[in-house]
Amino acid sequence: MKKSFRLPSFKFAGISAGIKKNGKKDLALIYSTVPAQAAGTFTTNRVKSASVILDQERLRRNRCQAIIINSGNANAGTGKRGISDAARMARETARLLRIDERLVMVASTGVIGRPLPMDRITRAIPRLTGSLSSGNLRQAAEAIMTTDTFSKISSRKTRIGGQEITLGGITKGAGMIQPRMATMLAFLVTDAAIDRRSLRSAFRWGVENSFNRITIDGDMSTNDTALILANGTAGNRTIASGTRDFKSFQALLKEVMAELAEAIVRDGEGATKFVRILVKRARSQADARAVAFKVANSPLVKTAIFGEDPNWGRILAAAGSAGVSLNPERIDIYFDNLQLVRKGVSSGEEAEKKAGRVLKNKRLRITVDLNLGKAKAEISTCDLTPDYVKINAAYRT
Amino acid sequence: MKKSFRLPSFKFAGISAGIKKNGKKDLALIYSTVPAQAAGTFTTNRVKSASVILDQERLRRNRCQAIIINSGNANAGTGKRGISDAARMARETARLLRIDERLVMVASTGVIGRPLPMDRITRAIPRLTGSLSSGNLRQAAEAIMTTDTFSKISSRKTRIGGQEITLGGITKGAGMIQPRMATMLAFLVTDAAIDRRSLRSAFRWGVENSFNRITIDGDMSTNDTALILANGTAGNRTIASGTRDFKSFQALLKEVMAELAEAIVRDGEGATKFVRILVKRARSQADARAVAFKVANSPLVKTAIFGEDPNWGRILAAAGSAGVSLNPERIDIYFDNLQLVRKGVSSGEEAEKKAGRVLKNKRLRITVDLNLGKAKAEISTCDLTPDYVKINAAYRT
Repeated sequence: MKKSFRLPSFKFAGISAGIKKNGKKDLALIYSTVPAQAAGTFTTNRVKSASVILDQERLRRNRCQAIIINSGNANAGTGKRGISDAARMARETARLLRIDERLVMVASTGVIGRPLPMDRITRAIPRLTGSLSSGNLRQAAEAIMTTDTFSKISSRKTRIGGQEITLGGITKGAGMIQPRMATMLAFLVTDAAIDRRSLRSAFRWGVENSFNRITIDGDMSTNDTALILANGTAGNRTIASGTRDFKSFQALLKEVMAELAEAIVRDGEGATKFVRILVKRARSQADARAVAFKVANSPLVKTAIFGEDPNWGRILAAAGSAGVSLNPERIDIYFDNLQLVRKGVSSGEEAEKKAGRVLKNKRLRITVDLNLGKAKAEISTCDLTPDYVKINAAYRT
Repeated sequence: MKKSFRLPSFKFAGISAGIKKNGKKDLALIYSTVPAQAAGTFTTNRVKSASVILDQERLRRNRCQAIIINSGNANAGTGKRGISDAARMARETARLLRIDERLVMVASTGVIGRPLPMDRITRAIPRLTGSLSSGNLRQAAEAIMTTDTFSKISSRKTRIGGQEITLGGITKGAGMIQPRMATMLAFLVTDAAIDRRSLRSAFRWGVENSFNRITIDGDMSTNDTALILANGTAGNRTIASGTRDFKSFQALLKEVMAELAEAIVRDGEGATKFVRILVKRARSQADARAVAFKVANSPLVKTAIFGEDPNWGRILAAAGSAGVSLNPERIDIYFDNLQLVRKGVSSGEEAEKKAGRVLKNKRLRITVDLNLGKAKAEISTCDLTPDYVKINAAYRT
């Protein structure tokens, strides 16, 4: 994972505005020197933060030049006041940047149900816009963190349409990470020129293959937001879907987004293990995903992994409870390349002993082969530890 | 919760057969002096233990005279050998009791994936049948325990059809407790005379309103079994559905089963709090249940309850992610009688302080009022604690 990247046409800032009680950075800004094409995905929770509601409305125009993000307060469960606070954050930012306020998006993460401390935020915005710099990405990545233990940055370069293209992004996660939506917060920027439809389609595909394939606790946030800005300053011929350039751009997106998504799982609250759950030979993609998520979210499977106990019975039980038609007598289970279960029963004590050793590793893959069809799905998750409970029992205090 | 009950026409036994390494009781027997009407519900997991497969087959005849139960080993994930072991447990029991082996049911609970130690079990069965007594219910209740910290017994008496009827039962739970099925193991006995259809319909209704309304970790076992034997020795006129007698019998069932189900939640692995989640004024029963289970199973809600943090934002977020259409701006949330959220926003700091005090109690009710319709559902659950993780990380070792 890279520590940072530079893109002259994008500037970043991250400062402490006093939203967090501990004085850590809590206000970030991403700014494109020219208006950019934009695409985004948001939580599918019926309860949405004010910032998500604002962004979904503004994104209809597919244009964005700045994103202001605060951590420490989710601005969710805050009613009409929350909506007007989010709009005011955008308006103040636009005023100081001298851009159209409709080109400013807002994102928030933190505690739900408390009004934003708007006096502190508006006092801090001039300092935030004043510290914008191409070299300040790291500060921005830190300012969006909540219970994350490290900042998450990824970037790649490639040649597309005759020019070198850079794509980079930052993300934050740690808890409330759950399937079928974007991650908590992810922001990507690129100097590529790409038309808005192609950007939207590439981005949605990228989210589906990265952030939507991880899970930490099966809980779904009110604030999940993933945004991408493409400002075209690389001067490449405009990328259009269906072309080779588009394929290259998709590949670039996938690499960066997969790295960011993996970083979220590695930094799962209290996590000590990174686990890929691969479900193979299911009757359909939907079946494969359902089984993989059920196994990945099972508290009993996750605590066994924490305890380094090759308790495959729990994996079998979780698979069986996914609501998917399957035949237990056909199921094979592997820990990395070690076969632990053959046709629904143990491969023997020797295999279980070896599996105990595989579980000592920080990273492993659990494969559940249903032996029924051709579809597969892979989900990344982490273990469930006493620290997860401690972090979340004490979060607001 | 009563310590025990007596019913002269039922005998019980509970002994140590050496299935558990720690020498605790692990083999139980329930015996009716005459063949009884029987009804049952089982796990809906696609992976079922050998005992569940055997019982489902035998229960088609609706007759049962004895149930042999082992703890310490689930006899699941054991293939064909598991099926023949379960049948052999029943056959040995039938031989010693001199009854038809098709009248014997089997239940198992414990670790998945290891063959039953059949030598120890067959050696112990004569001692088990030899110790049958009307006074040994307590021993049977103890012998079905796994990580339970106390034995769970309930009973009630009432007059039905001109006679005093007794209904009593034992259960075990502690983990892997999840909606839409029976509990881990529950066995009920009554001297009532009731026809088989009425017994089945009353029992299913009872399970639906007790064991299917609790959740501990959202995981679903391969072994869940609930059985009832009604041997008619009370000499009442036979209870038939649609009558007043039937209503009285249902009421009796509900009281006993609700007490047993509540005991399972109170004894949830590592639990420190007993929490009822009531969802009111939903558009439909299905909506109300979906929201209640989502809140009851949310790790973030459950850890906040453990931390005594009135973090209603997590309750709101869980409700919003239940896949049910709702309007956040109409939602009210109460902790016991204290209103914490009004129309989707905080009722104020004073209310949050008071809520912190409500959370100090060992028992509380969280009400989520959707303000949309007339349906409601209540689910009982417990908090998620570091001890839950520790118990399940170390279970097999």
